[in-house]
Amino acid sequence: MKISILGTGMVGRTLAAKLSSLGHPVAIGTRDPKATLASNDKDAMGNPPYRVWAEQHPSVKLVTFAEAAAQGEVLFHVLSGQGAIPGLRLAGAENLAGKILMDVSNPLDFSKGMPPSLAVCNTDSLGETIQREFPKTRVVKTLNTLSAPLMVDPHKLAGGEHTIFVSGNDAQAKTQVTGYLREWFGWKDIVDLGDITTARGTEMLLPIWLRLWGALGTPVFNLRVVR
Amino acid sequence: MKISILGTGMVGRTLAAKLSSLGHPVAIGTRDPKATLASNDKDAMGNPPYRVWAEQHPSVKLVTFAEAAAQGEVLFHVLSGQGAIPGLRLAGAENLAGKILMDVSNPLDFSKGMPPSLAVCNTDSLGETIQREFPKTRVVKTLNTLSAPLMVDPHKLAGGEHTIFVSGNDAQAKTQVTGYLREWFGWKDIVDLGDITTARGTEMLLPIWLRLWGALGTPVFNLRVVR
Repeated sequence: MKISILGTGMVGRTLAAKLSSLGHPVAIGTRDPKATLASNDKDAMGNPPYRVWAEQHPSVKLVTFAEAAAQGEVLFHVLSGQGAIPGLRLAGAENLAGKILMDVSNPLDFSKGMPPSLAVCNTDSLGETIQREFPKTRVVKTLNTLSAPLMVDPHKLAGGEHTIFVSGNDAQAKTQVTGYLREWFGWKDIVDLGDITTARGTEMLLPIWLRLWGALGTPVFNLRVVR
Repeated sequence: MKISILGTGMVGRTLAAKLSSLGHPVAIGTRDPKATLASNDKDAMGNPPYRVWAEQHPSVKLVTFAEAAAQGEVLFHVLSGQGAIPGLRLAGAENLAGKILMDVSNPLDFSKGMPPSLAVCNTDSLGETIQREFPKTRVVKTLNTLSAPLMVDPHKLAGGEHTIFVSGNDAQAKTQVTGYLREWFGWKDIVDLGDITTARGTEMLLPIWLRLWGALGTPVFNLRVVR
């Protein structure tokens, strides 16, 4: 299946590497591919420039947001909270229409000190914002509650006995996404929280997630819904 | 140990019944004990009037907020988000000074539709609001992330293999509270998140908690931090 990932950060790279290793044709979308490949700067999190990663993953193509959205049969959205809507507008509503967009982003706001707060929460969410802006896209919020290495390899931790969530308005899209998460990454416990407004719940996990990272000294943890 | 509970709702009743059954002298504080005992109204959650519960638990005394705060060696705060600061002011800063206040409340806001949103979150929390208002009180936010029957009996679910949190500025108070939670209720996994600002993290669990209640059809669940 042709899979496109909108965003070149570590989450996007981790998803792309895993999906490519499974044999899927994977494209990563960015604003300006030439500029992204020319950059020698580390990203905001101190990760090496995209170029270094790209050399190690020659099968993953870097294209524009619009090309990525047009080519992909299923899309991942992994832009920053701030970059989400501008990036998706460049991808183009017509290229996003009818497609599943797995929204893995969080609206982190670094402007009010560390740890970051949320730019939108409580009575709205980034997932809802994206769904409102692109009503024809089948937005499924998922995977935004844990670190990238665990997203694609839950078995790394406690035999995969921990939980992720899906939120979205399109029941069939959620069923498909649940299947992908099982098949591609080996997820066992996937809870359907309800419509896209339930993305408020998973995005609002970020404040405790960030503090657990501090308290535990590692991002290699996740929540399990014990019931 | 003399324990006082500020608030007459189901959380307060559940804590009082358990602590009383362990042999502790327990008082519950309310604005107007005569009015509370005279009322035949069910509470906002449809629970029976306090009077009915009180008849089944004669060893638990109902007193004013100020009497409860003055008598208790350790205090629980279980008022609603809206009632918190007014109730604690009636308890009196002088009666609260120097004491551990285990803050079990959440700033639920029912004015914007169901499920409720939070009246304060993201860059502040109810726990911080209480600590600012009563700087001499040793506020420890805890137990606000699960249903009352599980607070006092974690072994009811999965042998107690799930997690609660403590947040607070006073390290010694958190150590004492951790001991109480182990001894009184049998908690095994208690994570110290850090200072009282980390209460933002646990209070912001409520949105997903409320939606999990909907998705699972029961409030008998909890999160485990798998690491």
